Amino acid sequence: MNEVIKLLNHHRSLRKFTDEKLSEETIRTLVGAAQSASTSSYVQAYSIMGVTDPEKKKALREISTQSYVEHNGHLFVFVVDYYRHQELAKKTDADISIDKTENLIVGVVDASLAAQNMAVAAESMGLGICYIGSLRNDVKKASEILGLPDGAFPLFGMVAGYPTEEGSQKERLPFEAVYHENTYQRIDEVEDDIEAYDQRVSDFYSERTEGKRDDKWSGQVINMLSKKQRLDVDEVLKEKGFLGQ
Amino acid sequence: MNEVIKLLNHHRSLRKFTDEKLSEETIRTLVGAAQSASTSSYVQAYSIMGVTDPEKKKALREISTQSYVEHNGHLFVFVVDYYRHQELAKKTDADISIDKTENLIVGVVDASLAAQNMAVAAESMGLGICYIGSLRNDVKKASEILGLPDGAFPLFGMVAGYPTEEGSQKERLPFEAVYHENTYQRIDEVEDDIEAYDQRVSDFYSERTEGKRDDKWSGQVINMLSKKQRLDVDEVLKEKGFLGQ
Repeated sequence: MNEVIKLLNHHRSLRKFTDEKLSEETIRTLVGAAQSASTSSYVQAYSIMGVTDPEKKKALREISTQSYVEHNGHLFVFVVDYYRHQELAKKTDADISIDKTENLIVGVVDASLAAQNMAVAAESMGLGICYIGSLRNDVKKASEILGLPDGAFPLFGMVAGYPTEEGSQKERLPFEAVYHENTYQRIDEVEDDIEAYDQRVSDFYSERTEGKRDDKWSGQVINMLSKKQRLDVDEVLKEKGFLGQ
Repeated sequence: MNEVIKLLNHHRSLRKFTDEKLSEETIRTLVGAAQSASTSSYVQAYSIMGVTDPEKKKALREISTQSYVEHNGHLFVFVVDYYRHQELAKKTDADISIDKTENLIVGVVDASLAAQNMAVAAESMGLGICYIGSLRNDVKKASEILGLPDGAFPLFGMVAGYPTEEGSQKERLPFEAVYHENTYQRIDEVEDDIEAYDQRVSDFYSERTEGKRDDKWSGQVINMLSKKQRLDVDEVLKEKGFLGQ
């Protein structure tokens, strides 16, 4: 196993950082690595924001509810972004409406590939990172804070910084349950693997909390998916020109 | 600049490979690296398929129209996948409908972060990769070929293999146009940067084709976005339980 794969396999989300800020050079290195990722048909349908204004960080923290949105080495926000394409198109006769699911998918994929490259680059430099999906708790307000025009919306944040914790990893689903050869395996073919996995996850929590918590993976994610949250994302995206009217 | 960042910055999509197939061990390493990426609230809303059946590869190539979908070291397909969550939830009283944009976004992000980790891992092993977004030319047919149930759809493919070409890189948008500090920059603040970039892209094509081609980035992407393609993605995703009815 080479060093890069060791680095990837060692990933853990970190949420506690020193006060040291990322240098301009580090920020440029991270953005450059992000931009090196593949992009669908060269479209580059994303922007990356850096948030350093304390008022804005505080306001974004209130949306996210996570303290590390305010306290970190740098706060990035990955934006799905067709605004610049639309502005450039205005000088031509082209109609580049972005109201199809395909347009949304392309932007989300583009931004995510870039972000994961940044995550890997950051970790290779000894930084810790954590994705902030909770900015989508209020996409409209987050857009206002960042001054995002129509055609652009905040997909997620990423905090980076010099970590003061080691963090821990949560075991992933077993290979047998996630990887399918040629034909997708139905639930009866994988449920034994998932059951054994559930037990390992439960044991992990139990060990870490001295028995106070022993939830299984399936229970945890079913509970999470049962919560009807972020229902306004549909509407806000439509207001911004995505997903039809 | 460390070796990992050099690797990331060196990325180029490769499309020509030897006949050598990826070993089972390599496939497991790549899937493991993919799974190490962050996942939203531990949900792991994706599966990874490996396609080795020549008939299936041929059928997927017909959808994509790209010959390298058939000729490669291995063909992966990244699937946005809530099927297993839904099946597990059936044993409980939980309602985990996935018809909100938020559910779609979470799945697309999860699958994309995993895929980019796989891309980095593959390149660190000397393999070349190329994303295959063109599987979305016919999401319904691709789903049928792979036997995907409701709650799951093919987001994109990725070919990997031992490359027989060096490939080339297309310059990305300048840092100044992509990175915004605190407040999103409107078009008038970045259009000079984009214009200069357009010229560099045009020069690059012109040099490579001895003047036969000199299109700019903006022209290229406006043209691409003007094509109303993959309009059926909306409908197929709705049939599969995504994005409301």
